Amino acid sequence: MAKDHISALDAHWRAANYLAAGQLYLLANPLLTEPLQPRHIKPRLLGHWGTSPGLNLIHTHLNRLIKERDRDTLCVWGPGHGGPAVLANSWLEGSYTRTYPDVTRDAAGMERLFRQFSFPGGVPSHVAPETPGSIHEGGELGYSLAHAYGAAFDNPDLLVACVVGDGEAETGPLAASWHSSRFLDPVHDGAVLPILHLNGYKIANPALLSRIPEAEFDALLRGYGHEPLHVTGDDPRTVHRDLAAALDRAVDRVTAIQREARSTGGRGSRPAWPMIVLRTPKGWTGPAHVDGEPVEGTWRAHQVPLAGVRENPEHLRQLEAWLRSYRPEELFDAEGRPTPKVLACVPAGDRRLGATPHANGGLLTRTLPLRPLEDFAVAVDKPGTALHEPARVLGQLLAKVMADTAERRDFRVVGPDETDSNRLGALFTATGKAWQSATLPTDEHLATDGRVLEVLSEHLCQGWLEGYLLTGRHGLFSCYEAFVHIVDSMVNQHIKWLRTARELTWRAPVPSLNYLLTSHVWRQDHNGFSHQDPGFVDHVLNKSPEVVRVYLPPDANTLLCVAEHALLSRDHVNVIVAGKQPCFDWLNLDAARAHCARGAGVWEWAGTDEGLRDPDVVLACAGDVPTLEVLAAAALLREHRPELAVRVVNVVDLARLLPREEHPHGMADFEYDALFTRDKPVIFAYHGYPWLIHRLAYRRAGHSRLHVRGYKEAGTTTTPFDMVVRNDLDRYRLVMDVVDRVPDLSVRATALRQLMADQRSRHHAWIREHGTDMPEVADWSWPY
Amino acid sequence: MAKDHISALDAHWRAANYLAAGQLYLLANPLLTEPLQPRHIKPRLLGHWGTSPGLNLIHTHLNRLIKERDRDTLCVWGPGHGGPAVLANSWLEGSYTRTYPDVTRDAAGMERLFRQFSFPGGVPSHVAPETPGSIHEGGELGYSLAHAYGAAFDNPDLLVACVVGDGEAETGPLAASWHSSRFLDPVHDGAVLPILHLNGYKIANPALLSRIPEAEFDALLRGYGHEPLHVTGDDPRTVHRDLAAALDRAVDRVTAIQREARSTGGRGSRPAWPMIVLRTPKGWTGPAHVDGEPVEGTWRAHQVPLAGVRENPEHLRQLEAWLRSYRPEELFDAEGRPTPKVLACVPAGDRRLGATPHANGGLLTRTLPLRPLEDFAVAVDKPGTALHEPARVLGQLLAKVMADTAERRDFRVVGPDETDSNRLGALFTATGKAWQSATLPTDEHLATDGRVLEVLSEHLCQGWLEGYLLTGRHGLFSCYEAFVHIVDSMVNQHIKWLRTARELTWRAPVPSLNYLLTSHVWRQDHNGFSHQDPGFVDHVLNKSPEVVRVYLPPDANTLLCVAEHALLSRDHVNVIVAGKQPCFDWLNLDAARAHCARGAGVWEWAGTDEGLRDPDVVLACAGDVPTLEVLAAAALLREHRPELAVRVVNVVDLARLLPREEHPHGMADFEYDALFTRDKPVIFAYHGYPWLIHRLAYRRAGHSRLHVRGYKEAGTTTTPFDMVVRNDLDRYRLVMDVVDRVPDLSVRATALRQLMADQRSRHHAWIREHGTDMPEVADWSWPY
Repeated sequence: MAKDHISALDAHWRAANYLAAGQLYLLANPLLTEPLQPRHIKPRLLGHWGTSPGLNLIHTHLNRLIKERDRDTLCVWGPGHGGPAVLANSWLEGSYTRTYPDVTRDAAGMERLFRQFSFPGGVPSHVAPETPGSIHEGGELGYSLAHAYGAAFDNPDLLVACVVGDGEAETGPLAASWHSSRFLDPVHDGAVLPILHLNGYKIANPALLSRIPEAEFDALLRGYGHEPLHVTGDDPRTVHRDLAAALDRAVDRVTAIQREARSTGGRGSRPAWPMIVLRTPKGWTGPAHVDGEPVEGTWRAHQVPLAGVRENPEHLRQLEAWLRSYRPEELFDAEGRPTPKVLACVPAGDRRLGATPHANGGLLTRTLPLRPLEDFAVAVDKPGTALHEPARVLGQLLAKVMADTAERRDFRVVGPDETDSNRLGALFTATGKAWQSATLPTDEHLATDGRVLEVLSEHLCQGWLEGYLLTGRHGLFSCYEAFVHIVDSMVNQHIKWLRTARELTWRAPVPSLNYLLTSHVWRQDHNGFSHQDPGFVDHVLNKSPEVVRVYLPPDANTLLCVAEHALLSRDHVNVIVAGKQPCFDWLNLDAARAHCARGAGVWEWAGTDEGLRDPDVVLACAGDVPTLEVLAAAALLREHRPELAVRVVNVVDLARLLPREEHPHGMADFEYDALFTRDKPVIFAYHGYPWLIHRLAYRRAGHSRLHVRGYKEAGTTTTPFDMVVRNDLDRYRLVMDVVDRVPDLSVRATALRQLMADQRSRHHAWIREHGTDMPEVADWSWPY
Repeated sequence: MAKDHISALDAHWRAANYLAAGQLYLLANPLLTEPLQPRHIKPRLLGHWGTSPGLNLIHTHLNRLIKERDRDTLCVWGPGHGGPAVLANSWLEGSYTRTYPDVTRDAAGMERLFRQFSFPGGVPSHVAPETPGSIHEGGELGYSLAHAYGAAFDNPDLLVACVVGDGEAETGPLAASWHSSRFLDPVHDGAVLPILHLNGYKIANPALLSRIPEAEFDALLRGYGHEPLHVTGDDPRTVHRDLAAALDRAVDRVTAIQREARSTGGRGSRPAWPMIVLRTPKGWTGPAHVDGEPVEGTWRAHQVPLAGVRENPEHLRQLEAWLRSYRPEELFDAEGRPTPKVLACVPAGDRRLGATPHANGGLLTRTLPLRPLEDFAVAVDKPGTALHEPARVLGQLLAKVMADTAERRDFRVVGPDETDSNRLGALFTATGKAWQSATLPTDEHLATDGRVLEVLSEHLCQGWLEGYLLTGRHGLFSCYEAFVHIVDSMVNQHIKWLRTARELTWRAPVPSLNYLLTSHVWRQDHNGFSHQDPGFVDHVLNKSPEVVRVYLPPDANTLLCVAEHALLSRDHVNVIVAGKQPCFDWLNLDAARAHCARGAGVWEWAGTDEGLRDPDVVLACAGDVPTLEVLAAAALLREHRPELAVRVVNVVDLARLLPREEHPHGMADFEYDALFTRDKPVIFAYHGYPWLIHRLAYRRAGHSRLHVRGYKEAGTTTTPFDMVVRNDLDRYRLVMDVVDRVPDLSVRATALRQLMADQRSRHHAWIREHGTDMPEVADWSWPY
């Protein structure tokens, strides 16, 4: 590389470093036009310097690469807490000003850029939704590489660079993510270029990977299926030269792989994709020593290297020397604008990393082609007589979506090895499972270009899908209900991202993250207690109500309605809990549509409260298994106490129970009262932990008469009906609850109570002897 | 190996396979003394065959190894859903009958063993707490290897074999766990021998690692720091020979590594520990084809290879042929007892894998030596004037525990690179951070024999600690509050384990799992919104109340009291949320002890309700930041409305709010009413999501007058006081809440409300200008 090229790259890097340090420290005097004074310094010094020079270096070199190769590139910044670096680069290339016109690319704008950073009312210290060009927060570490692959899937012309920090590289999700290239199709997908940045230290410790013997480390990366290119140094000139060469070589290799695969239709063996290992000092170019302790190149550079600048004149002096070491007068003109030399490497327009539409994926989103639900709905002549597996019915719809996006390739289904066992196997009529490794004759449905992603890692499923959605495409994650907790923390971050992104007018809405939790708590026949946990709903309902939706469709047609809504929605996290086991059809399509639109409603055909404003008791239910038990309880009551006015209410959209001011779907009190009454007993059979219903409804008028049954951690490997008995959610217990709570039930009711208790005893005796459920339960159907 | 040795091993293996298959299918006729009939078959066929023959093979060979080497061995069965295999082996070696005397080692016991499996009222289908010799469920995959290392730490004489399934190997936590050997001290720790079992398929897909090119796969394992020994085959004789040889070689290597390290005091470089890669067919020895489809060696062998045995005569015939292929008549005598040849390889007494006390760790637990809290407590002359960092005070106590266990080595602290930043740095006066890799002069506190474990993986921290605790030792996990959600699903499993283990009289209680969440939601000054999540408390409170405890100590001395209680407790999961930032001392040690013993109580010195049974209003708080705001609000009320009777209640033990019948710590209603009144307004300032308090207290008399403030997902990088203002938890808002809710407050109160609103406006203006909190907030102390 020519000397003046390197000199220009170095100028850009110095400018970015100057701007990153400036954000950490300066309130004023951004160009150091006067000697630095304590009053120029922020009162609270917050942020992370250590990773910033490395990020600046990489951004500088990606700029050059993009400009020279003129190709669409997205960068995922794993060490996202190095926010100052990415902000500095965005400001330099002008994408920041394009996004936030008041932060101009001049001295006034520079001062604003500095002041707003980590300042109340300003911008967060991390790369965040507010940061142009970003799809990844990088606050919680571990997901950068999975996000990068998610962005690359079905984006054949995109190069996704992904900076992985050496701290993040110790996490489990990141360790698993290295295998992602085994799912990347060089024909239909873009390329991911991992740049593992080893700066040696985390907050207080050496980074593990930076201390592994060289041969072992190289073996590890090759074992991951990569061809590593190593760049190491602490002399800028050498590192500029080597990094530029490595990037060129990496992109040449990517191009060759893609060309080869695309010319042969992907019939070659899986390639070893290039990656870069960059070793440079932590806090490079910052203070070498502070107060006699080494800082540059150590963990002490992690946050703010000079902590006492306002009080300590020596620190102030060091800071000024540090900032002036970048020679800002060469980098910015008198008006504070970057000089042409600084900007020589910067690409233009949408090619800028801070301006790529792929990082504002909603701009690229196309509405998913959904056929009319009539094509998939099951016919329901009479409720509660025919059985379908709801997930299998949904599978037909998903298969059509998959087929209808065969050209567009903007829809994916992810899951941990469970698509077929979750009854979504119809998908394999339309596509295969992504697989680039060797195959055997006994394999089924594997395909290099498959758009179902199966890997036994919920983290990868979630991370890939997030990356896919944030770049504007659509998808669904089908998962065991209990094990979706594995990604609790990831969904936290995604919800926080969406919540913030919704407030930014420049960010276009992206397709929602849709969960289908279909191997649920009540039907873990093979697996028992360890697989029983309905608490994901509780987890997400703690989060921003603008984003979160929870649906519990009770049968096949309601599942179709809910899924259609979810697949067409934007900027939400939709949690759909619906069984895969055979389940009664309760509603025909029209009724299902009306019911799901309301989110909660009276099932008049199931109750005995016709014409009454207030029934004697309300039997409410949410979830497929609770709905079955409530309907069976309603039938028992009709049989044994036909004069009792029983209302049956089914809730599909759980947030309807919240007050209107707490959630956009919340019911007004008058609506709630009309459904549940203000003062009658309500027996509520709920799919999950019963107290969640209290947490949602505690402000309602009738709350003191609300009695909820649900899962209370009583389970093992047993029969389906024994599960509900163990948790007091069974039909007999529900009838007993009615008897206990309806005040004017007579002596005959006591007999009814005893009859129910006898049925429970009979159940216990029966399963111990037979190992199966009693015929009156197993063969039950709606008798009216 | 001699032929008759192999023949004996094969007999044991066949016996175990027979018993595993028998558990899946048979209700009766366990020895096949008569032709198999439909009535001998279970009505519901539940369980997993695919992995069982591999587990049986490994167990058989571990038996031989243990017997020949006579060394303490524990095995962690990663594919724990192969429960039938581990149960079969335990029955064969007699440890099952020792644990459950009614399941005798004869035909009657065999029938019971078969019948109980996955049968209502019987035993779970997975390796579970009920399984002798187990510390690992293996239902949720990913944690076997971390558990194994946890068991090996500080157990220098123990060999921990760990079977890793090829499905599990795709998970993130497992992928990270391979690096655990970089933290294993060959001098003071035992050895872990990973046995990666590649049987090729998961539920419906090939296993990723089984399809990686051989050289790449070998590089991967060497990159993880292991020396892999490969055993591959489908001919039993060859596999027996090769596996025995590989195990011998591995243990020889382990012995050599340990001898070398222990003779040199661990001054050598980190060794490459051996591991075994075992490739055998899935469902080996089961039906080769069923209904024309290949089963043995494919994913179809995953659960029950023959599904229609009771209805389909051909399936019944195949099952009988399969079972008879093991030649049970050679393996069991007429009474159903295993023959001497079958038992030839089985070790005796506590050496048996199903009888090792390490898998019933409570048997080995010694009480932790804790010094009197007086040695660490801070003096409090007057509440709310002096400041301490509570975590730093606790660090002194932990350092002493660490020092006092220097010989015993049965205490560890784990954390993701945050021990020092969480103010627990005093620990490093007593021990170092475990580190076996290279070191540099700039490193601090690294030591090969360190008992602080730091790695940037919450999964590893949790998994190691679980393994350490379940083998009878003690520990603490210090973690960012938001990111402890990363291990939500792991703590689910641990709580389920403890809940079940508590019901088993033969399992001795083990030390509790203690969390210190000290970088909490209110003080993410550097990190902002992505680091704010107080929902872990909600998550654990959904789980079994027998196990779960949540503490929110408001200052340094209460933290000491709570920590002492937690460290001495057994079979609990204790979640302690306490800040690391400077915090007012409210209670001296005696008062703290009394307060923590009660779990919740009136702070009389802070209120103005002396002598009154019912005050005008109750200000309640839980958590350090809410306590500060409530005390400041109480001071404002005393200043502006001295005649108002204000009671201040602080809650340390959150479960106290639950009804007594819902949690062992729950208060009786009369206690609750005495604290909170039955009908006065209660303004409750809570650390986390406010609705949690409603979920706990909804049954209480005064619930409709309970008003809770807490975190509601409003946050960014800002000042500490701005965080509470954004979430309406600040002192001014609390006073406004009082004004709004105390019915007889006069016109002057309206003025007070306005004054408070003005203060909030002043705050907003101040931070925008200064970037810091107003002096009246920043410099506040308790004025009375």
